[in-house]
Amino acid sequence: MTIHTEQLDQLIDRIPQQLESRELAPITAELTELSSPDLVVVFEHLSVQHRAMAHRLLPKDRALEVFEALDPALQSDLLTALQAPEVAQLFAELDPDDRMWLLDEVPAALAARLLSGLPAEERALTAGLLGYPQDSVGRRMTPEMVSTHVGTTVAATMQRVRDRLADAETIYTIPVLDHGRKVVGVISLRDLLGATDDTLVEHLMQAPHTAEATLDAEHAARLCVDLRLLAMPIVDSENRLVGMLTIDDAARIVEIEENEDSARQGGVEPLNRPYLSTPVFTIVRSRVVWLLVLALGAALTVQVLSAFEATIEQVTALALFVPLLIGTGGNTGNQAATTVTRALALGDVRPRDLARVLGKEVRTGAMLGLLLGCMGFGITAVFFSPDIGVVIGLTLLAVCTVAASVGGVMPLAARAIKVDPAVFSNPFITTFVDATGLIIYFLIARTVLQL
Amino acid sequence: MTIHTEQLDQLIDRIPQQLESRELAPITAELTELSSPDLVVVFEHLSVQHRAMAHRLLPKDRALEVFEALDPALQSDLLTALQAPEVAQLFAELDPDDRMWLLDEVPAALAARLLSGLPAEERALTAGLLGYPQDSVGRRMTPEMVSTHVGTTVAATMQRVRDRLADAETIYTIPVLDHGRKVVGVISLRDLLGATDDTLVEHLMQAPHTAEATLDAEHAARLCVDLRLLAMPIVDSENRLVGMLTIDDAARIVEIEENEDSARQGGVEPLNRPYLSTPVFTIVRSRVVWLLVLALGAALTVQVLSAFEATIEQVTALALFVPLLIGTGGNTGNQAATTVTRALALGDVRPRDLARVLGKEVRTGAMLGLLLGCMGFGITAVFFSPDIGVVIGLTLLAVCTVAASVGGVMPLAARAIKVDPAVFSNPFITTFVDATGLIIYFLIARTVLQL
Repeated sequence: MTIHTEQLDQLIDRIPQQLESRELAPITAELTELSSPDLVVVFEHLSVQHRAMAHRLLPKDRALEVFEALDPALQSDLLTALQAPEVAQLFAELDPDDRMWLLDEVPAALAARLLSGLPAEERALTAGLLGYPQDSVGRRMTPEMVSTHVGTTVAATMQRVRDRLADAETIYTIPVLDHGRKVVGVISLRDLLGATDDTLVEHLMQAPHTAEATLDAEHAARLCVDLRLLAMPIVDSENRLVGMLTIDDAARIVEIEENEDSARQGGVEPLNRPYLSTPVFTIVRSRVVWLLVLALGAALTVQVLSAFEATIEQVTALALFVPLLIGTGGNTGNQAATTVTRALALGDVRPRDLARVLGKEVRTGAMLGLLLGCMGFGITAVFFSPDIGVVIGLTLLAVCTVAASVGGVMPLAARAIKVDPAVFSNPFITTFVDATGLIIYFLIARTVLQL
Repeated sequence: MTIHTEQLDQLIDRIPQQLESRELAPITAELTELSSPDLVVVFEHLSVQHRAMAHRLLPKDRALEVFEALDPALQSDLLTALQAPEVAQLFAELDPDDRMWLLDEVPAALAARLLSGLPAEERALTAGLLGYPQDSVGRRMTPEMVSTHVGTTVAATMQRVRDRLADAETIYTIPVLDHGRKVVGVISLRDLLGATDDTLVEHLMQAPHTAEATLDAEHAARLCVDLRLLAMPIVDSENRLVGMLTIDDAARIVEIEENEDSARQGGVEPLNRPYLSTPVFTIVRSRVVWLLVLALGAALTVQVLSAFEATIEQVTALALFVPLLIGTGGNTGNQAATTVTRALALGDVRPRDLARVLGKEVRTGAMLGLLLGCMGFGITAVFFSPDIGVVIGLTLLAVCTVAASVGGVMPLAARAIKVDPAVFSNPFITTFVDATGLIIYFLIARTVLQL
């Protein structure tokens, strides 16, 4: 999120032409003047080619600074558009954990080439992270940290900190290890500054909150954010220190996960890149699969309706309420699915809470259905006929109850079979509820109207 | 997000009975053993009364630690369930910015009582924050910080830091002020530790990224997270330092905003409290208004269909495709709305980009519509009749194009009239697209089938 100034907007509109007409000197001057966040905004609004051109115009240090701040997807675009030597250098200058974001983004061939281009020591660090499973926090932690041992004094620990100032990614949270490298506590730099030189670290340290390197990155990140830790020690299965997850990376991980969930909730695959700089074809790709799957599901409703075609022919008025009924059902299902999916993401609900969730949603759906049903009955009875009013009222009651229950349970089922709950979310549930809602509707209609 | 252990799950299930049967000694022992994050999980799963009972069992320091870690909504519940003296003490021990979260949550009367109970100095700090508008970053920043001035040496600045260790909320990012308190740079504690004692701070400082105290809290928070700043100086309109936004608070603000957007995207109001500990009636309240509004909107579809009742009577088959067509339209609209709402939240799109967004969505919708239309034509032509196939194909093309355009433009329109784009989001668009889709459908049908 950045606040746009008028000048910035004008610059964004002007740059492409200037680049095309090769007016490089003025642009270079203007770009170099901008703060890095503003540069990022400008870059996000440029096409892949223009972004690469503009990036080349920047002084080396600014170029790296901006590159680091870009989304991995844009970094990847940029790399494919830049020359090999520039690429190798940019990549070598990244922190090991930032490198991982990028490696997860670029094509495998490029990834291999990038790795082989690294200095031996940097390559070793990066290879270590690559050893952890996809989506694990091990791939998101930094291996460059400061730690201390029990029996060490504050003065000695401060010296360790000073020695690592240049390369450690975080120096503000310092894990305390026993002699088997197991994490037994953490000290904040603040505590160190407040203590006397000869104090032993074990007298200052607090109980550590750690996460295992194989843990899902989102889980670890939310833990770090919710506990408001500036950095969380990451450990192996023996509780030995292997890295640190810093809160800025944690916040970034959470933001990306939110992107995914929000996208799936709306039935699209996340773009992972700024909307305006995404080609239409890419946008279509992010939507078409979902749309087809859902359309096939919707074909079910045609089947259901054909089965009741005779009923519709007898009482055409029944057809008028179809969108209202399935729409309301879909909305009720979405509401339940949204709430429960969110609760799962935040860890407020666990798959084993199935029964409690179902209980809540059945009652919620029934209460909503009762309310809407009564209104539906009243209005329909007046404007159409009392018996149709009864059909509509009963259907709303039934559909809302079913929809809320299905919507509430579906995300838990998804999580239980290790599928992202957001995938099984709103549009999917809408489609499901459409079909079941129609069956309920016409069965009730046949019974009440004796067709 | 917290990872549940079996023991924790069992404890959660056991505590309520134990509290009821007043087996306080064993629970006290068990609770006191738990780490604070685990305690938070347990508390989140308890009812309001049980939470208050359990909280009273904790030793004072743990009680405060856990209280600080709870959602403001739960803190508020707890306050209303505890005794006045306990409440006053808990509140006095909170940091000024944490106090603000809580004050925004509790009933006005309680808020006033809490404030009046504060020691004079603390009350002054809090009152200062209360002076900033609702939802502004001024209410979320901490006024307790360390700053330094140009012309100050590293040694002198380090001394300032040591003097504020106890009360400053952050000491790792130190704003550098000129003699008018204007922010001219920032220094990290890391840079201070690496520099020689007599270096002047202006030789170490970097260009500051600041936000004005009246800026929307979400904007400022995303800025802080995206720039990966541990803390961002907050300034007044004259660029004078008034506080700091720390990244842990920024991450928390973003998480809460995500909650709101995700909820509204699904057509519910955010619960702001753990799902399982929320009474059914509260859940119903968070959904019913939305559902009624949408149902009224859906009543429009009944109107539209009645207008075409004659057409349906002539060709009942047309009724069979209604859910499929409006469902597909709704999904296409949701997809566009989701993508654009997200892009707005992340600042990738601005209201002035309206034309570019519309251009993208028209083309995207047309491409998707063309694809689905061809498939729709093929399948319907085979299973029903060629002319109905034409109707379905053309309708899908038209509906997808319209839905994507409306879905893409709606969030921008909302933002332009200062409404949360998520409010105007998916369910709303679905309802709108349902009505327009039906009109398009029957107009095409009448033309093609010459009815």
